[in-house]
Amino acid sequence: MHSIEHKKLNAFYAQSGGVTAVLNASACGVIETARKYRHSIGKVYAGRNGILGALTEDLIDTSQESARDIARLKYTPGGAFGSCRYKLPDLEENPAQYERLLEVFRAHDIGYFFYNGGGDSQDTAWKVSQMGERLHYPLMCVGIPKTVDNDLPLTDNCPGFGSVAKYVAISMREAGFDVVSMAKTSTKVFVFEVMGRHTGWITAACGLARDKEGDPPHILLFPEIPFDEDKFLAHVRQCIDTYDYCTIAVSEGLRHPDGTFVSETGVKDVFGHAQLGGVGPIIANLIQQKLGYRYHWAVADYLQRAARHIASQTDVEQAYRLGEAAVKLALQGHNAVMPTIERIANKPYKWRIGVAALQDVANQERMLPRDFIAADGFSITAKCRAYLQPLIQGEAYPPYKKGLPDYVRLKNVAVPKRLATGFTV
Amino acid sequence: MHSIEHKKLNAFYAQSGGVTAVLNASACGVIETARKYRHSIGKVYAGRNGILGALTEDLIDTSQESARDIARLKYTPGGAFGSCRYKLPDLEENPAQYERLLEVFRAHDIGYFFYNGGGDSQDTAWKVSQMGERLHYPLMCVGIPKTVDNDLPLTDNCPGFGSVAKYVAISMREAGFDVVSMAKTSTKVFVFEVMGRHTGWITAACGLARDKEGDPPHILLFPEIPFDEDKFLAHVRQCIDTYDYCTIAVSEGLRHPDGTFVSETGVKDVFGHAQLGGVGPIIANLIQQKLGYRYHWAVADYLQRAARHIASQTDVEQAYRLGEAAVKLALQGHNAVMPTIERIANKPYKWRIGVAALQDVANQERMLPRDFIAADGFSITAKCRAYLQPLIQGEAYPPYKKGLPDYVRLKNVAVPKRLATGFTV
Repeated sequence: MHSIEHKKLNAFYAQSGGVTAVLNASACGVIETARKYRHSIGKVYAGRNGILGALTEDLIDTSQESARDIARLKYTPGGAFGSCRYKLPDLEENPAQYERLLEVFRAHDIGYFFYNGGGDSQDTAWKVSQMGERLHYPLMCVGIPKTVDNDLPLTDNCPGFGSVAKYVAISMREAGFDVVSMAKTSTKVFVFEVMGRHTGWITAACGLARDKEGDPPHILLFPEIPFDEDKFLAHVRQCIDTYDYCTIAVSEGLRHPDGTFVSETGVKDVFGHAQLGGVGPIIANLIQQKLGYRYHWAVADYLQRAARHIASQTDVEQAYRLGEAAVKLALQGHNAVMPTIERIANKPYKWRIGVAALQDVANQERMLPRDFIAADGFSITAKCRAYLQPLIQGEAYPPYKKGLPDYVRLKNVAVPKRLATGFTV
Repeated sequence: MHSIEHKKLNAFYAQSGGVTAVLNASACGVIETARKYRHSIGKVYAGRNGILGALTEDLIDTSQESARDIARLKYTPGGAFGSCRYKLPDLEENPAQYERLLEVFRAHDIGYFFYNGGGDSQDTAWKVSQMGERLHYPLMCVGIPKTVDNDLPLTDNCPGFGSVAKYVAISMREAGFDVVSMAKTSTKVFVFEVMGRHTGWITAACGLARDKEGDPPHILLFPEIPFDEDKFLAHVRQCIDTYDYCTIAVSEGLRHPDGTFVSETGVKDVFGHAQLGGVGPIIANLIQQKLGYRYHWAVADYLQRAARHIASQTDVEQAYRLGEAAVKLALQGHNAVMPTIERIANKPYKWRIGVAALQDVANQERMLPRDFIAADGFSITAKCRAYLQPLIQGEAYPPYKKGLPDYVRLKNVAVPKRLATGFTV
């Protein structure tokens, strides 16, 4: 371990992968906590555009931001320092990038590495910690979980998911109130496409909109359940016979029984290219062609993961607390770990911060358990509802100015470079 | 005029056309005001599924609903009694339906007709009032404006629009925070499709998200401005060269210079059918093909007009007050009128209720003025911003229960039928 008595080391913080409504709340937790422990830790440098900022020595000096602006991160969506979709190469095959990281860290007296991302990012954090040990560079590597997909292992849930879950459940409920009003003479079918290419957590969250039998959503299409067209169409018809309308939430990752994505198989543009569609319009169109009902469809796309205006209070608090915990863990000398959410009780909901080893987190996906999906494959179980319910609790409204959320844009002042050499990624 | 001294006459209220986030706030205004004046007015009967309920004698007795549930209408989206897309035939050619309406009204002692809808509905209200006079049936006909399209004449703005405007501006801003975070290595272009087939009011509202040059949205595509593909693509490229990303709001009603809808011309499904697409994915795909940038797109569809969770406080208040005013106008003996919003001042925003003759309102569309659109056709002017700004003011949050808005579903008890004959629409 490095000696914090002699010299206050700086911290590097980076955001990685798809951004969320509460990723900046974690950043806020990291920076505010580091400022609180300024006797033990130096400045927090953020990577501009995530890990790329470390590789290219493009660091942001967060100490240039006012306390007020850092506090505003707690209610600002997106990634305030820029994120990236960039996976470091394998450590054994290509150590050059890891060596470069340590070179940059050494040049800027960085002794703490906070990496805020999903499964790939936790894998990267793990590799960086290995590299630090191998090269005898003292570095506390701490991952901070983040993913709307809710698919990290060893944590009860992932920051970012709760707010998407709340947004899609609200949207589903609201659209249901619209469709039922119009069903007599107009639209009878509404299809809502949501994210979650590999796992059905977000699709499942749409199911929270249903309070009682017959309420929207009537059908959920999970990526875990192969799409059975005939069974699905029969269900739609039965739903309309019973309720006069049918609302459907479908995962972007819905697959045919042969494993191909439904989104890839339905649509070509006039030039013959596939990929235009989105599974939402494909499902809607299928219903129109086979059953003849009038339909509407919506694709929320980025709106769902950026919807800070209706973020879950639980989610915001957890995101912040995980950022805070990451700094504390590092200061306590924990390396190669990730703080987690541990659920203590459902009613009333209680949780606490736990710790997992990065080695155990890396590159694992936590799938939606089969017993969270009802036997017919079209709705969620009570067990699933009990799990999801606390995660959407509370409305963490941002402040407004001129009728719109008053989100912060940071100055993002660059740290002067110290290395003579550049680096091409 | 009928004599209100001898007998308290009942009121008929119906919701018409596409529903909104605040249509029920107008219903709340009508019913609460009628209850307040119960010495002058009898019960409020609502048409189940709009005017169809009158034709088929399927009336809802709103007096069966508790005061609390009626109050909850103020924050519940959709159409609580059901709406319909049904336009009565021309009075001269087919008077039978109008005669039937009066037959139902007579059977249920209805002396007040409140019709809550857009241009077509105001036309219907006008015709019903003419029919009442012609047949010497005493009926006070009052229209209540409603349309997310904001295209009614003689009123400064239309209830429903302000909340959609707020929703799309927030969504645009939030998506912008997402895209700018990811642009370095991932999505550079985001396309957001919004409603407004004939007029660009909702597209213009997206422009409110921009506080300063360079902020999202970078490009607006209005239905009023013929789509110039080359000019548009040049603008996208310039935007990405300057800001590294480009966010676009596009109206569903965008047209080619030859007048055809862009949404109708781009996409066919595998069976060769057109109509699947939506203009959002078409524009996104065009950019990818011609310029090669990675893109995402969203289509909010019903979510935008059902988004009561973030309704504009101004909009909710105006919707309520218009419902209230309609009842008062009728009780004052005004026939064939529609209460309107009159703008008194922008800063601070002041407005009052005015009155227009239904005859002047019917079947007119108020287009987005050309001087609300910038010279290049891709953004809004300061004049447009000054008009729109007050309409999105204030956040009229609904109450929440278990993490979701606690919207009301009424009992909607039917009034016993009094006519021997049915009616087939």
